[in-house]
Amino acid sequence: MLIDGLQCGHFTRDVFTELRQANVAAVTVTCGFWEGTVESLDSLARWRDLVAANSDLVAIATTAADIEAAAAAGRTAIVLGFQNANLFEGRIRFVELFAELGVRVIQLTYNNQNELAGSCYEETDSGLARFGREVIREMNRAGMLVDLSHVGNRSTLDAIDCSDKPVAVTHANPDSLFTHKRNKTDDVLKALAGKGGVLGCATYRNITGDHYSSSLQSWCEMVARTVDLMGIDHVAIGTDRSHNFTKPDYDWMRMGRWTRGVDYGAASAASPGKAPPPSWFTQVHHLGLLPDGLRGVGFKPNEVEKITSGNWLRLYGEVFADGRPAQAATPGFVQSDPVLALS
Amino acid sequence: MLIDGLQCGHFTRDVFTELRQANVAAVTVTCGFWEGTVESLDSLARWRDLVAANSDLVAIATTAADIEAAAAAGRTAIVLGFQNANLFEGRIRFVELFAELGVRVIQLTYNNQNELAGSCYEETDSGLARFGREVIREMNRAGMLVDLSHVGNRSTLDAIDCSDKPVAVTHANPDSLFTHKRNKTDDVLKALAGKGGVLGCATYRNITGDHYSSSLQSWCEMVARTVDLMGIDHVAIGTDRSHNFTKPDYDWMRMGRWTRGVDYGAASAASPGKAPPPSWFTQVHHLGLLPDGLRGVGFKPNEVEKITSGNWLRLYGEVFADGRPAQAATPGFVQSDPVLALS
Repeated sequence: MLIDGLQCGHFTRDVFTELRQANVAAVTVTCGFWEGTVESLDSLARWRDLVAANSDLVAIATTAADIEAAAAAGRTAIVLGFQNANLFEGRIRFVELFAELGVRVIQLTYNNQNELAGSCYEETDSGLARFGREVIREMNRAGMLVDLSHVGNRSTLDAIDCSDKPVAVTHANPDSLFTHKRNKTDDVLKALAGKGGVLGCATYRNITGDHYSSSLQSWCEMVARTVDLMGIDHVAIGTDRSHNFTKPDYDWMRMGRWTRGVDYGAASAASPGKAPPPSWFTQVHHLGLLPDGLRGVGFKPNEVEKITSGNWLRLYGEVFADGRPAQAATPGFVQSDPVLALS
Repeated sequence: MLIDGLQCGHFTRDVFTELRQANVAAVTVTCGFWEGTVESLDSLARWRDLVAANSDLVAIATTAADIEAAAAAGRTAIVLGFQNANLFEGRIRFVELFAELGVRVIQLTYNNQNELAGSCYEETDSGLARFGREVIREMNRAGMLVDLSHVGNRSTLDAIDCSDKPVAVTHANPDSLFTHKRNKTDDVLKALAGKGGVLGCATYRNITGDHYSSSLQSWCEMVARTVDLMGIDHVAIGTDRSHNFTKPDYDWMRMGRWTRGVDYGAASAASPGKAPPPSWFTQVHHLGLLPDGLRGVGFKPNEVEKITSGNWLRLYGEVFADGRPAQAATPGFVQSDPVLALS
């Protein structure tokens, strides 16, 4: 059983088939980067259609129990996430509404400062802003996981402190192992672990560097050093792998609608294109090699289990637990039989 | 027990208190006239806040069982409705999303033709348009009631025919009793009844006329003549009463953003302002007089019960029954304990 805390891209039946092949129990997917409310609802609707059309392979999950049920039924659970808070369009009350529509993971901001927080790419990180505090409290209440991956270090520390529930950095690596604006400094990672949070180690070459990308063993050694920093209960996998992305997709990711110029995101002017995946992870199903790789660098079976699924499952369980706002306003909303239970 | 199939306006604690005083078990409220997706979500969010702040008096209901539970607990159930389809912004997939957020009644169009249907005020009623057919099928699937009150007669007939489930004219009167574009011709009312639908008789003076507004007995006689037309199982109450509306509210209702000119809606240039309520219905709690009034014109107790609540309850039960799309995409979405069950 394997959980990937963050993937992007255009998912297809082929991707789902490979995820099954690798025994992936759950993936948190990226439903949007810059999209506002209506476009985000469009994205959720497209995901529903995609999952419905591939219901033999995947199922949308909104609780940790859903993920376990999907795994038992031989399906990969899809956890719906957004890498930005634009879906709220500044409205605190939309947190509850999107939670009810199944969204479970939201990054406070993507590459730019917004009304919630500072970004890792801004010259000055403002720290958590007023709306950011409101949204974190509301996400706590609504059972959504706060993702701080692209958030600036100062805002990240503020958010860890502000949140009543543990939070996540779903896709990044330690800055002390590979220096990059997208990676997290040791003090941030320790604060994250101190509040029960989880880091998803990324395989994305731009934030992993050539050394730790060079072989499965090398990447697993990065994970081992991260565990030394944070402890075995706080390190997991968040590959940041993008499926079927082409230049227009990367352009949207990096430039959205916010610049007439060029922005390279985690890439650079010297190497602006798509970063090649690590040679050991050219196919989605290579994810299935990770347990062996982790055993190969000395992790015991129960440690491998925590890194590859247990830590995400524990965190999802703690955060998604209520599943629904405490002040649920639609008391008798009838649930049809869960799709998973029918399998 | 009393159900009002359509009210508008700004609801307040005073209104809720009067509804309790009149033993009103449920009201379908108007969450929007011209609002698009985001504004409609804003409206739903405001309704949640309003209900949460008055949870001793009201509760949002999404099933007929919710209404009965609310009545048993001494609360008035709020059924969330919209008098226009603008909330979908042309997206078929948003029907399911709004259903999941608790919306249960939607009028295909308000005073103007839209992408779904023709309106009662257009010179030519196109009949049901292609998107209208799609939306009706989707509303059938999602457990939402199709409201045809302001819809043109031709489109209304098409919609009655198109819908697999019975539909409603939540607030109108027979055109043969008071001639008005907003009222429905006998053929429409018979077709509506023939498919198991329900007409909510309105008290709104502009579409009731002075004669049937002149006394409670007179209004109840209009109901009796409507029952003669449609049968006892197909006539109910839909007052169309507006709470706390002032000129800017009526301007929004009538002109929205669609004209730089003046439109009078159901009023007229000769009498453009707010129509005074019938003298016997100046206060909300006067709703409580209706059962006695109906008995006074000769209805038997079981007939009074059908008109005042049973017919809506039966229709809501048939249409809202599934409550949730058949292809529910968020299988394990955890429900907290129903508020009603705690009371």
